[in-house]
Amino acid sequence: MRFMFILFFAAACSWGNELSELAKSRGLKAIPQQKAELEQLIANPANPFSPEKLELGKMLYFDPRLSKSGLISCNTCHNLALGGVDGVAAAIGHQWAANPHHLNSPTVYNSVFNIKQFWDGRSPDLEDQAQGPIQAGPEMSMDQETAVKVVATIPEYVAAFQKAFPKEANPVTFANIAKAIGAFERTLVTPAPFDAFLHGDEKALNEQQQRGLQLFVDKGCTTCHNGIGVGAP
Amino acid sequence: MRFMFILFFAAACSWGNELSELAKSRGLKAIPQQKAELEQLIANPANPFSPEKLELGKMLYFDPRLSKSGLISCNTCHNLALGGVDGVAAAIGHQWAANPHHLNSPTVYNSVFNIKQFWDGRSPDLEDQAQGPIQAGPEMSMDQETAVKVVATIPEYVAAFQKAFPKEANPVTFANIAKAIGAFERTLVTPAPFDAFLHGDEKALNEQQQRGLQLFVDKGCTTCHNGIGVGAP
Repeated sequence: MRFMFILFFAAACSWGNELSELAKSRGLKAIPQQKAELEQLIANPANPFSPEKLELGKMLYFDPRLSKSGLISCNTCHNLALGGVDGVAAAIGHQWAANPHHLNSPTVYNSVFNIKQFWDGRSPDLEDQAQGPIQAGPEMSMDQETAVKVVATIPEYVAAFQKAFPKEANPVTFANIAKAIGAFERTLVTPAPFDAFLHGDEKALNEQQQRGLQLFVDKGCTTCHNGIGVGAP
Repeated sequence: MRFMFILFFAAACSWGNELSELAKSRGLKAIPQQKAELEQLIANPANPFSPEKLELGKMLYFDPRLSKSGLISCNTCHNLALGGVDGVAAAIGHQWAANPHHLNSPTVYNSVFNIKQFWDGRSPDLEDQAQGPIQAGPEMSMDQETAVKVVATIPEYVAAFQKAFPKEANPVTFANIAKAIGAFERTLVTPAPFDAFLHGDEKALNEQQQRGLQLFVDKGCTTCHNGIGVGAP
C-alpha cells in the first residue's frame, strides 16, 4: 500500500514537471526569481528607478490632492489593499460619476507586464497611463496646471521631486508626477504559486490546479493568453 | 510736529486701553494666554487629555476610512488647511450629496468655546458632535458597527486605542472613536490679535479695527455676541 502511494506520488511529481515544461513550451512565463533579472524586466530606461523616485511615486499614488475634489487618489480605484482594484462594476470618480463606458478599474498589480495600458491598449506604458485618470473628467478631473500648482505649494513634495529628479532645474512638472507614479507602479509585482510552479516547484500547485492548467493548455487558451501573468499581453 | 505726533500716539494708546476695558466689561473675553488656564478651559473631565489620545484623535480626524465610501474624513468638510471649513455653500458628502438643509460646515477651530454644537445647538459637546457626521447619510454615511470593524482590522489603530484608553479591556468602540476625535478638536485653538488686544496689547489691532470694535460695542452687538471668540456662545 505504502509502495503504491509512493508510486502514485512519484507519478504526480513527474506529471507536474512535465506539465510545467509543457506550459512553458506554449509561451507561459514565470515572473523572474532573481532580483536583478526582475528589475531589468520591469525597468523603463527612459524613467530609471531610484529609491527617492519610488518613495515619491508612492506618496503621489496615495494622495487625493491630485484630484480636483481633493478626495480621489490613484489608490481610490486601484486600491492596493483590495487587489489593486475598487471592487465595483464601474469605477466611481469625480462628483460620484460612474465610468461612462461602464468600465471597471483594472488592477495595477503586475500591470507592468501588460504590453499596452488601458482596456483598449491606447497607452504604451505606465508613465503615459498615469497621466490619464488624473485629468479624466469622470475620474480625478484635475487639470495639469493645477496639479503642478498644488504639488508645488507643499515644501515636502518640492524637496522630494528635487531628490527624485536631481538633474532637473524645475522638477515639479506634470510629466514627472506621472513618471514617479509610473515608476512606483512598476514595482507592484506579486509572484504567485503559479510562478513557483513554472520555476520547477511541483508542489506549488495542487492537483486540481494542475488539472486546470493542463486543460488551459489543451484547449489552446495559451494561443492568446501567454507570457508573464498568463492573460497579460 | 514731533510732539504733536507723540501726543496723538499717546491718545491712541490710551483709547486702545479704554476700549479693551470697555469690551471686556461688555462680556468679551480673550483666549487665556497661560497654558494651564487654557488647558483647564478646553478640557472635558469626562474625556481627559493625554498625548496618546490626542495623537489618535488626529489620526482619526484625517482618516477617510471612517466613511462608507472610504473617501471622506472629518477634514474633508472641516479642512484644517482652509480655516477648518470646506469653502462651499452647502457641505458635500456621501455620493456627492449636498447638505439637505443647505447648511455649510462650521469651522472646528475654536469650536470648543461654543456652548453647544451643530447649527441648532442640539449637541452638548465635541465628543457627542463627532458621532454625528460619521453616521449621517449625506455626510460620511458610516454605521457604528462597520466603523469599529474597520478600525479594529488595523493593528496600528488597535495599539493606539490601547494607549489612549489604557484602562479599558476593549477600547476600540464607536464612543472612543468620537472621544479621541473630540479631544483632538478641543486643542484646535487659535489665539488672534483680538485676544492679544483684550490682554492689553494696544497695538494688536490697528486703528480701523479698533473703530470696528468700538462700533460693535456701541451698537449693542455684545448683548448676544460675547464671551471667548465673540460670536461663540
